[in-house]
Amino acid sequence: MTLSVGWVVSFKMKAMVMTGFGSPDVFELREIPKPQIKAGHVIIRVRASSVNPIDYKIRSGLLKNLAPENGVLGFDVSGIIEEVGDGVTRFKIGDEVFGCSGAITGNPGAMAEYQLVDERILALKPSSLSFEESSALPLVSITTWDALIRGAKINQNEKILVHGGAGGVGHLGVQIAKLFGGVVYSTVSSDQKAEIVAKYGAIPINYNSQNITEYVNEHTNGKGFDVIFDTVGGDVLTNSFEAAKLEGRVSSVNTRVKCDLSILHQKALSLHVVFMIIPILHDQNEGKLRHGEVLKEIAKKVDSGSISPLIHKQIYSFEKVSEAHKLLEEGNAVGKVILKGFD
Amino acid sequence: MTLSVGWVVSFKMKAMVMTGFGSPDVFELREIPKPQIKAGHVIIRVRASSVNPIDYKIRSGLLKNLAPENGVLGFDVSGIIEEVGDGVTRFKIGDEVFGCSGAITGNPGAMAEYQLVDERILALKPSSLSFEESSALPLVSITTWDALIRGAKINQNEKILVHGGAGGVGHLGVQIAKLFGGVVYSTVSSDQKAEIVAKYGAIPINYNSQNITEYVNEHTNGKGFDVIFDTVGGDVLTNSFEAAKLEGRVSSVNTRVKCDLSILHQKALSLHVVFMIIPILHDQNEGKLRHGEVLKEIAKKVDSGSISPLIHKQIYSFEKVSEAHKLLEEGNAVGKVILKGFD
Repeated sequence: MTLSVGWVVSFKMKAMVMTGFGSPDVFELREIPKPQIKAGHVIIRVRASSVNPIDYKIRSGLLKNLAPENGVLGFDVSGIIEEVGDGVTRFKIGDEVFGCSGAITGNPGAMAEYQLVDERILALKPSSLSFEESSALPLVSITTWDALIRGAKINQNEKILVHGGAGGVGHLGVQIAKLFGGVVYSTVSSDQKAEIVAKYGAIPINYNSQNITEYVNEHTNGKGFDVIFDTVGGDVLTNSFEAAKLEGRVSSVNTRVKCDLSILHQKALSLHVVFMIIPILHDQNEGKLRHGEVLKEIAKKVDSGSISPLIHKQIYSFEKVSEAHKLLEEGNAVGKVILKGFD
Repeated sequence: MTLSVGWVVSFKMKAMVMTGFGSPDVFELREIPKPQIKAGHVIIRVRASSVNPIDYKIRSGLLKNLAPENGVLGFDVSGIIEEVGDGVTRFKIGDEVFGCSGAITGNPGAMAEYQLVDERILALKPSSLSFEESSALPLVSITTWDALIRGAKINQNEKILVHGGAGGVGHLGVQIAKLFGGVVYSTVSSDQKAEIVAKYGAIPINYNSQNITEYVNEHTNGKGFDVIFDTVGGDVLTNSFEAAKLEGRVSSVNTRVKCDLSILHQKALSLHVVFMIIPILHDQNEGKLRHGEVLKEIAKKVDSGSISPLIHKQIYSFEKVSEAHKLLEEGNAVGKVILKGFD
């Protein structure tokens, strides 16, 4: 029998901690234990994160069951690798990376000085973008990839309708659809947003001035679009079925609705539902590797000038996360809302 | 100015005509005009047809809007080409063919002495099968092809669950899934049906003795099946979502239901809905050609011994169509119900 005696040295770090479920005000700056390295993982010195709807849905209690134990949110991360665990092969100390690490049970989020992240889901950040700009991309670009490339398998010259093309996921939807040869249309609610989607190469459709039948008639001669990307959910999902052509494909990021599926039968539609955090939530090797690969592709396309993130004009510090949540939740952001990491 | 004078010679033929919507007794043997040849079409001397659920759904009035104007039902056909129209290139007089011609607006069905059929949807019938046996295949095999090959895009070694594998569509589902390298499971309600699906190479699951969780645990270690083919609709569709793995694919032939789609989100599922008559209903060139191509493939696979139709023991003459409809509608058929053409 041997007796082990040792020192336990516990390092602390700053983090924005969700102290409960509720309003955007539940965040508090706290000192919490710095994560310890583990095999297959890296420790990132966090430089930026961004806010996604899933962040405020967890915070508000709508997706309570996903909440990380330590209350640290922030799905997207960009930063510098400070430490690598056993078996890490893809990255080395000093690498500048980005990824969607999740902020869920077992995977605390990015709103801290340091974050422990599985190397498989990371990629080197685009060299042409800052950390802040890079942190806008991971969740929305992987979501779009899942929706359009893996799910709908878009082809050259297909007519692709992106609902909400000026939004966080939507603006990636427009750009990736365009990049893969689609003829891209996008619904928007204002002239300002019409300008944004036009800048990314989509033909804007203002849904306040045209109904579904009208825009289907105008742009597809009444036949319907080949592919529809619903980046919103709810009524927009059922609108998507209406705007689809016979045997068309609809991809959606949110099908938490009860609806009549008869129209799917009448038109023989395919529906691809995206929930990009599944590989992280269920620790799937293949899915995690896929996320890393997609981000590698995205970084390439950013650096070659074919994709760029749309960033809301005001950048928030981690300490101001409550304001950032409020902005996005109330629908007042134009582009991704970025959170700048602790200095 | 010229004056055209001509004889109009009108030939008559026997047909089973639906005299109204309602019970299986609405059929009547009548003399109706023989169809006249037209470009791109052939006239088939009908030798057999088979009953599909869509036949009795039109007859009962459930799908009233699809009913053919002359009341002649019978979606599947096999027979001999008697006349070819201008521009017909694929077939010649005397060819023995099979196809799913539809029995809908503008496309009268097969339950007559002769039928006018678009050449694009036809193929030479399998030489190893009789006309009666061949007529069992078109609608169900194209449906299965759409569901598993075009829709779910099944891969080698995937675990594929076919609901109702002893049924009309189901028994093709089992065989085609097997043929493409799937590990096939099938739900059935009785020992007799378990034997049938086992004969076709599926592992039977009696849904009266095991619930979904139980069979998902037993056969997939709790993970769920890669692909599920719902050949039934209604509750079976929602059961399919439950039995699917994360990011799994569900193909269904009937989504005329209202249901909660949350589970599609939680699991990031894909849903492919099949309605095989769309190319006929909407006169789509590409879709019609696809139907002909699929049947060519099916005939090859039948002749090489890898697919065979399951035929209900009793064959009905066209005159006995009421009995045949009753049998299928009441769920008492085992295998496809065949209708033998007029002598």
